[in-house]
Formats: sequence, C-alpha cells, structure tokens
Amino acid sequence: MTKEIAAEELDPQSFISEKVEEIRGAVGDGRAINALSGGVDSSTVTMLGHRALGERLKTVFIQNGLMRAGEAEQVAGVFRDLGVAVEVIDARAEFFAALKGVTDPEEKREAVTQTFYRDVFGRLVRESKAKHLLQGTILTDVDETVAGIKRQHNVFEQLGIDPQEAFGYQILEPLIQLRKDGVRKLGQALGLPDEMFRRIPFPGPALAARVIGEASLERIETVRQATQVVEKRLSGYGAFQYMAILHEDRVTGMRDNRRDFGQQIEVRCWDSVDARVATPTRLPFDILEQLAQEIIDAVPSIVSVTYNIASKPPSTIEAV
Amino acid sequence: MTKEIAAEELDPQSFISEKVEEIRGAVGDGRAINALSGGVDSSTVTMLGHRALGERLKTVFIQNGLMRAGEAEQVAGVFRDLGVAVEVIDARAEFFAALKGVTDPEEKREAVTQTFYRDVFGRLVRESKAKHLLQGTILTDVDETVAGIKRQHNVFEQLGIDPQEAFGYQILEPLIQLRKDGVRKLGQALGLPDEMFRRIPFPGPALAARVIGEASLERIETVRQATQVVEKRLSGYGAFQYMAILHEDRVTGMRDNRRDFGQQIEVRCWDSVDARVATPTRLPFDILEQLAQEIIDAVPSIVSVTYNIASKPPSTIEAV
Repeated sequence: MTKEIAAEELDPQSFISEKVEEIRGAVGDGRAINALSGGVDSSTVTMLGHRALGERLKTVFIQNGLMRAGEAEQVAGVFRDLGVAVEVIDARAEFFAALKGVTDPEEKREAVTQTFYRDVFGRLVRESKAKHLLQGTILTDVDETVAGIKRQHNVFEQLGIDPQEAFGYQILEPLIQLRKDGVRKLGQALGLPDEMFRRIPFPGPALAARVIGEASLERIETVRQATQVVEKRLSGYGAFQYMAILHEDRVTGMRDNRRDFGQQIEVRCWDSVDARVATPTRLPFDILEQLAQEIIDAVPSIVSVTYNIASKPPSTIEAV
Repeated sequence: MTKEIAAEELDPQSFISEKVEEIRGAVGDGRAINALSGGVDSSTVTMLGHRALGERLKTVFIQNGLMRAGEAEQVAGVFRDLGVAVEVIDARAEFFAALKGVTDPEEKREAVTQTFYRDVFGRLVRESKAKHLLQGTILTDVDETVAGIKRQHNVFEQLGIDPQEAFGYQILEPLIQLRKDGVRKLGQALGLPDEMFRRIPFPGPALAARVIGEASLERIETVRQATQVVEKRLSGYGAFQYMAILHEDRVTGMRDNRRDFGQQIEVRCWDSVDARVATPTRLPFDILEQLAQEIIDAVPSIVSVTYNIASKPPSTIEAV
C-alpha cells in the first residue's frame, strides 16, 4: 500500500527535493514526457518535472475539442509565463470520430481514454523517444478506482496496457502519496500562480462527461456555452465545484408563444472539502434565477434549467 | 368569440341560476353524463350539473391508473359526502395498453385522450343513453388551444369528432366564460369543500405527463411515489403548483459505495396567479434538501433530484 502524506504533515521543500532526486534518478540522462490538462494535479507534476529535468521534460497539452472555451490558450499562456514550454496538439478530429454514436457513459469514458492514451498520447510518446512518463495520479484516484466508484483516465493497468512492454516507457507518479489539499500546498511551493488553485476540479473526459448521451460536436458546443455562463456566474461563492450538464431528455417549452420541445441544462454546484461527500451549495434564489435566464439567453436550444438538490452520496459529483 | 366574465365581476348566485336554467333547457327531460377528474373545473361542473339535473346527471370517475395515490377513493368520498353519487370505472388495463411503447409527448397525450374519449368514456356515454355531456372547459383552455401551447384533452374538435354525429350527444360547457379564479369562486358558492380548492392543478394526461419517455406501469408507479412525497412536503408553502417529474436520462449515483446508474426526479414548484406566467417558488434550502432525501429514501431507483429554476416562459409548467 502507498503511504499517505497528510497535507498538514507535508513539508513542501523537503518533498520537492526528495521527488526531484527520485525523478532524476529514474530518468538518468534520458528524456521524459507528460500531458498537461491544466488541472492542479497535472500542473503540479509539470512544475515538479521541469524542476527536476528542465527541457528534458516535454509537456504537451492535447486539445481534444472537449475543453472549456479558451482553455488550451489560457493554460499554455500561464506556463509560458512560468518559463515552461507547452506544446498544444490539435487532436479534435480523432476524439469526435471516437465518440461518434457512443451514448453509454462507460463507453464514452473508454473512447476518450483510449483515444488519449492509445492513439494520441501513445503516438506522441513514441515520437518523443521518451522512456519515462510523468503522471499526476493522486491517492484519491487510487482509492476510488479500487472502490469501483470511478475509472480514472490515468490508471493504465485498467486498459490492460503494460506501458513498459507496449511503449517501452515507465510511468512515474510522484504525487501518489498526496490528496488534493496536499497537491495544492505543493503546487504553491512550486510557484504556480494563485489562479491555478482557484480552478475548480474538471473531469478527465472533460465536457464529454457533461452531456448525457452522445458527445457530438454540436452537443459539446452547447454544453460549452452553458459551462461558460455557469463558471462566470458561480465563481464568487466559494463552492468546491460547479458545472452545467446537458440532458438528453427533451422538455416542453415555449418559443414565439407556441409550444415547442427544447433541451434542458442541469446546474450542479457543490460544497465539499475533498469530493468524498458533498452537498448542494445554498445559492440565493436571485442568483439561481439569473443564472437560468442567462443560460436560456446564451444558448438558444435551451428552454429549461434545473439545479441539483441531492447530496453525495447517493448522488455523485458528476452526472455521467 | 366567447365573452369573458372576470372573477371580480362574477355574481355566483345569478350565474348559477342562469346556467341551471340553460342546462335544464338544453337537456329537457333527458339524461346527461359527465366525467369527474377531481380537479376544480370538473368538480364545479359536476356540482352545477347536479344542481340543475339531480340524478338525471350521471357522473363517472375513470380510474386510468395514472392518478395519484388514493385519488379515486378520495374524490369519490368527497362527492358522496355532498350527496352526489360518483361511479368509479376501472379502465387501467385499457390505458396502459394504449400507452405501451409510446414515448413521444404528443403521442402519449393522444393515446390518453383517445382512450379516454373514444374508448372508455365513449362507451359509457352510449351505455348511459345520455344525449348531453357536461364538460368543465374554461376560457384558458380555449386560449391555449388556439395559441397552440396546449392540446386540451376536453376539446373535441381536435380529435375530428363531431359528438352529435358520432355519439348522438351534445356538449354543454357552462364554465367556458370563466378563468380559474372565477371557477373557484363559483365552486365555493356551489358548496364544494375548501379542500377541493387547495388541490393544485393536475394535467389531463395525469401522471403520464409526469414521466419523460414511456408511461409504463412501473414508471408511473415510480413517479406516483415521488409525487406523494412532493405533494406532502410542499403543500404548506402557498405555491400555485408543484410536481415530481421522472426523467428518462440515467445519471451516475452510488449504491453500497459503488458506482451505479440510477434515475432522476425533477421537482417543479411554481408561483403563479393563472399559469400564464410563472416563476419557481423560492423554497428554503433546508426544505429542498429534505425533499431530495425523502424522495431518495422513498423511491429506491432514484439517485438524483433537481429543482427547476427557469421561469415560464420559455419553460412551461409541465415538462411533457
């Protein structure tokens, strides 16, 4: 079993020194590669890897078409300012091709995972000649994978892939003893700007996890627009996480004073410390109604907006 | 055009006298029939009809299997106490047979309407030898039908049926000049107990309008259980209407600490005067969270509960 290091016991500087040594020891004079999503885990492992390896670590941001509005540019910009080069890879066509016609949540997740690791990232790794791959896996990912609550996109064994055998590389997971709060503390010590920690958690399958049913280009664009409204409107309430979910069910609405069927967006906004348990944030009704109106105004196909009022458990944070 | 009588201008006693005369004049020494749903409109027209015709008006309550828990018994009991005999007709098998495999909202509505009028009520009318049929159509029904917002279940022409020709009977609509508030005033003057007016509006297709997708026996039972929780919990807030809607979309939940897919209930609770415009009731979050928990506890397949936060328009009161 992996030994947990609680956030309050974490001494960031000695942890950094130790992990820098470990990474250098493992990589030797070779090259490593990692994929940056812009989340706290992958951002922190990127900084740690560059502290250890400098330009011998190649960092890529895979644009899968499932990210939020402006996300690739924003993340690459932050790291550019920190002196870390990030290569943005446009793989949108590959992801939408893999998601075509897929409606089952597990199969969707699988399509995103397979396209990411096997097709796109696998190819990049081979081309890079790197023998080591850095991943931001944290202890909660391992727990939830073992408990069967979640299939983490960054746990390779589940794909039945031995990376050493398949691609000739080894995986390094320097954050595996930490939970989210420990990673935040570490990331700050590594110089990540405050805005990175104000980012709310975002799922591995990205906006594909925010549509019920097929994650087509059009439906992803719809939920992307709604997400932009929700993130802007709810950023000031100290919530743990908030999201827009596009439903597949059609509901009745009125357009030009006539009955018509439209789509529904579900908004979830969570109070939580570590995502293991969570309750809906008690937002003022003024805000909820404004939010609904703004979504309806910004996204023409939407006629109805709901707000989640169930807790986790038995709900989960994400709907898909 | 039908001349509207506003509630504040309505003199119930002279209105009753006038309509009693009209009904007696039309029916002569024949017999009439009407279907009671237990809503304010059909309850008021039942009282008015019995005032005019006594036992020459036959009143039936059609148990379509789509009503709320205990509803048939409760409605028949109220009228029994008022000295009005109501015959409860068990037609559940016919309705579920007609709804089998039907998922489109319009087709579901059509299946309920056709089964009600053409099959069940049509047969009862023929058997009763009545030549007149009393209906509780109000002015708002006519407006909304003309505007295309709603297909009222009690507007015959839409079915392409000339009742005189098809069944040999004439339709009497004594409430057609009134809106909901006028009907309430009239119903009180006719001696309907207060509890009838505390009843919230309930749609013609009943619980079939409260499930997205197929209205199977099992899904109707699920939404019936959720409806019972919602109506009990939200009855004290002075809201215009409140409801539980069973979605077809599956969402992730946790059961026995493992990831599992479950069903979602959407709760809508409306503030409105006459249903033409409506806003979500600003319920306290304590109540919303309790409500979600009670639904999850009472209905085992439910893992998620949402609350509507959009206004009408562009939403409608009902989802289907």
